[in-house]
Amino acid sequence: MKQLVLSEWLLTQLSQNKFPKRMPTHRRIYEAIRQAISDGVLASGTRLPSTRSLSDELSVSRNTILAAFEQLLDEGYVAAQTGSGTYVAYNQPDGFSKKPISTATIEPKPQDDAGLSRRGKAAAGSLNRQSHEVQPFTPGEDDYSQFPTMLWRRLLNRQWRAPDPSLLDYGHAGGYLPLRMAIAEYLRVSRAVNLTVDQVLITAGTQQSIDLCARLLTDHGDRAWIENPGYWAARRVLEVNGLQLHPVSVDNEGMAPSTKDFRATPKLIYTTPSHQYPKGMVMSYGRRRLLLDYAESRKAWIIEDDYDSEFRFEGRPISSLQGMDQNARVLYMGTFSKVMYPGIRLGYLVVPPNLVTSFKSGLYELQRPGQVVIQAALADFIEEGHFANHIRRLRQTYAERRKLLQKSLATVAEVGARLSPVDSGLHLVVEFDQEVDDVRVATMAAEHGLRVNPLSNYGIGEKREKGLIVGYAYAATENISKYGNVLANVIKAGLKNRTP
Amino acid sequence: MKQLVLSEWLLTQLSQNKFPKRMPTHRRIYEAIRQAISDGVLASGTRLPSTRSLSDELSVSRNTILAAFEQLLDEGYVAAQTGSGTYVAYNQPDGFSKKPISTATIEPKPQDDAGLSRRGKAAAGSLNRQSHEVQPFTPGEDDYSQFPTMLWRRLLNRQWRAPDPSLLDYGHAGGYLPLRMAIAEYLRVSRAVNLTVDQVLITAGTQQSIDLCARLLTDHGDRAWIENPGYWAARRVLEVNGLQLHPVSVDNEGMAPSTKDFRATPKLIYTTPSHQYPKGMVMSYGRRRLLLDYAESRKAWIIEDDYDSEFRFEGRPISSLQGMDQNARVLYMGTFSKVMYPGIRLGYLVVPPNLVTSFKSGLYELQRPGQVVIQAALADFIEEGHFANHIRRLRQTYAERRKLLQKSLATVAEVGARLSPVDSGLHLVVEFDQEVDDVRVATMAAEHGLRVNPLSNYGIGEKREKGLIVGYAYAATENISKYGNVLANVIKAGLKNRTP
Repeated sequence: MKQLVLSEWLLTQLSQNKFPKRMPTHRRIYEAIRQAISDGVLASGTRLPSTRSLSDELSVSRNTILAAFEQLLDEGYVAAQTGSGTYVAYNQPDGFSKKPISTATIEPKPQDDAGLSRRGKAAAGSLNRQSHEVQPFTPGEDDYSQFPTMLWRRLLNRQWRAPDPSLLDYGHAGGYLPLRMAIAEYLRVSRAVNLTVDQVLITAGTQQSIDLCARLLTDHGDRAWIENPGYWAARRVLEVNGLQLHPVSVDNEGMAPSTKDFRATPKLIYTTPSHQYPKGMVMSYGRRRLLLDYAESRKAWIIEDDYDSEFRFEGRPISSLQGMDQNARVLYMGTFSKVMYPGIRLGYLVVPPNLVTSFKSGLYELQRPGQVVIQAALADFIEEGHFANHIRRLRQTYAERRKLLQKSLATVAEVGARLSPVDSGLHLVVEFDQEVDDVRVATMAAEHGLRVNPLSNYGIGEKREKGLIVGYAYAATENISKYGNVLANVIKAGLKNRTP
Repeated sequence: MKQLVLSEWLLTQLSQNKFPKRMPTHRRIYEAIRQAISDGVLASGTRLPSTRSLSDELSVSRNTILAAFEQLLDEGYVAAQTGSGTYVAYNQPDGFSKKPISTATIEPKPQDDAGLSRRGKAAAGSLNRQSHEVQPFTPGEDDYSQFPTMLWRRLLNRQWRAPDPSLLDYGHAGGYLPLRMAIAEYLRVSRAVNLTVDQVLITAGTQQSIDLCARLLTDHGDRAWIENPGYWAARRVLEVNGLQLHPVSVDNEGMAPSTKDFRATPKLIYTTPSHQYPKGMVMSYGRRRLLLDYAESRKAWIIEDDYDSEFRFEGRPISSLQGMDQNARVLYMGTFSKVMYPGIRLGYLVVPPNLVTSFKSGLYELQRPGQVVIQAALADFIEEGHFANHIRRLRQTYAERRKLLQKSLATVAEVGARLSPVDSGLHLVVEFDQEVDDVRVATMAAEHGLRVNPLSNYGIGEKREKGLIVGYAYAATENISKYGNVLANVIKAGLKNRTP
């Protein structure tokens, strides 16, 4: 195919509008080129047009073309020859198929693990790689198409107009003070967190917050309690810090340590008491007291990860576990990724008073925080009321999507699946019986273009809970019912034909 | 002192212009209030005016007032009562004195180390806390007052005007492609790094780059070679990852492993071959070959930290160690902190081809990179030629400052100190004899308002090299000679009265 023809062909593909409505342009271009390669229309070795010329010919921003090329490059469909352009690769990726969307399983690439250490393999090796494709129902993604970029640009401009030199420096004192004050106020009022402003540290997000706690409060080989099922990203960070992970089951009251668990004294307890991740239960008052008393008796630290707390839809706001703690054993963390946009890389960690100086020092020594300009813009965003407005709008949108999804999935009860009634933030949980192969059901869903996560992926050990985690934040409201029905049919088909 | 009087008093202090010319306004306000507390003019318990009213009355941005308050708060001179303002603290910080600038020594605060783990104490404990005051001659600071903020604002605006959704997401593929391409081109041309664009990862800076290498390539307890004296921040990161640090001496050819060192096989070698940090020597060709051959024979990894490579002033650009390596054992890293501004938090890591997939995965899993909008603006900054211009201007400025400083320090030879002729980037090295107490000389300099680092701080073990590291990037050109003369006198006084 000559270069001229490729852009014409792409224009045709794009105008035929065969793609899901909310699929970004760069994804459509990626899919179209991928398909062209798959169909043999673009032969191996063919040189692709320059991104500038494609951008002109398609009347699409160069960024958009570049994003499409980036994904093709990254996945091995094309290769870049330095100085002479981009070519269709001779060695197409393993397992290449005509499926328009990658399945949920990952192809192992052993040669890339050569040289990794044990902890490196556990953290990043091929068996641990997650597909990052964002499609309807991908958990962990929020709808940042709703983010008010014009307003945000204005607030950033305000800072860059006459930047105080300290805005360009590393963050030295735990973060930009007005932002820490705004967070302290918000947490005090809405989450009953007990704090003064100097206890607030601004971090680069949840990974970094957990990492800092692990490094400053534990030593290699120490034990950490984690919820099972639980947040795998937290597991990854705790593991790479050399901690022994001790999984604790959950029940309808949240993290549920048994007598056996109590004998396995941890240095650190990682928990999500406001709504258990991923199952959504709120930790009961009794369970909270139990955990706090136990932590005090063993001088263990509790990390309270209060993710998505802004998006609870029913009932009163849940008070934090930290607010109930009289013994300064709880470190409380949150993030702005889901309310603002993921790339903002801003979160916060509230530490007990006696740890403030060490944590500020550790934050600087180990992580060199910065981006104070963005912190300043965010402080204004909160103080001027935009944050509250934005959350309110998001909550309305998400509540609507959640209702529609619940409705369209209701029929899965026919095959013995259970749609959990628990409000879990930005996803629903469909529970299966123990013998169901939830990975297989998820794969079937992926073949229909829907990316859901098997609940068993969130668990550790032999007997894992089975089900699907279905994110609804990312899918457009007008499509939810349609996709929901497709998913319901997949689940019903999958559970009818279950292999014992 | 009533609130009204404080602002009037501050106005008087500020207009009398008793402060160093380039001291930022927020620092002057901080110093003035600090002085008022010290002189008893502001009594304990006095409520300070609101930041808004001070901002109005002093005609100074609220950010500026907030920055001053932040430092007072952080250092304990004032305390914030939530909901009712900021007060002069009753318990003034320990060791409070009338000295206008903190000394180089740190007051230990044991209660804040309670609860820290062993590795936590090593990373962040009171004995390891560094003062972050930036004054003339502080090493590690660059002059970001020269940073073209108007231009940068324009480039950021361009991205925010019509942001591609992928700009708001996490960075998934190792970083924004156009930025990686620009870096690849720059490194290929100016540093003879051998790479294709997919080997480039964008990280949040040097700390994060080293951290990623340590986590993916080593296990707890593995041995790492470090230069002695060397970069303490790298040491800190390697240590917290559980590595056994093996210090290797340096000589005029750079890192100088002995027979004894060769028997202590490392998993990782951290080195600064372009100019040794902090002493500045260029690693000779023969030493490079030796290191590369050794690493290959032991299957060790070499981390080449090419800091400040843009600021070499004499001779031809130095080729990278990585470019000489035939065995894919070198990971090459650099940073934008010193050329752009420290808070930008962007650096890069070039990994061997067989590690690309693992490192991209590890980068996402462990660090969740983002800030793609800033990466995009930086890509334009480089592609449009502003980066090269900015470096050129900075080099001219720094070269001038370096010359002036060398001239004013020349007389230290009278007392046996040696001004190293080696071009070390953004600092000069003044070498002392072994028996000199360089910490004492640095403290004397601090009492004169000049913050330099003792060379012994950069070393490990019993017999450390002695001297001073004098940064010249931050001090204004018109002040260098004056400050340099003061420092020369301090050095001469310090070495004349040396205690054995």
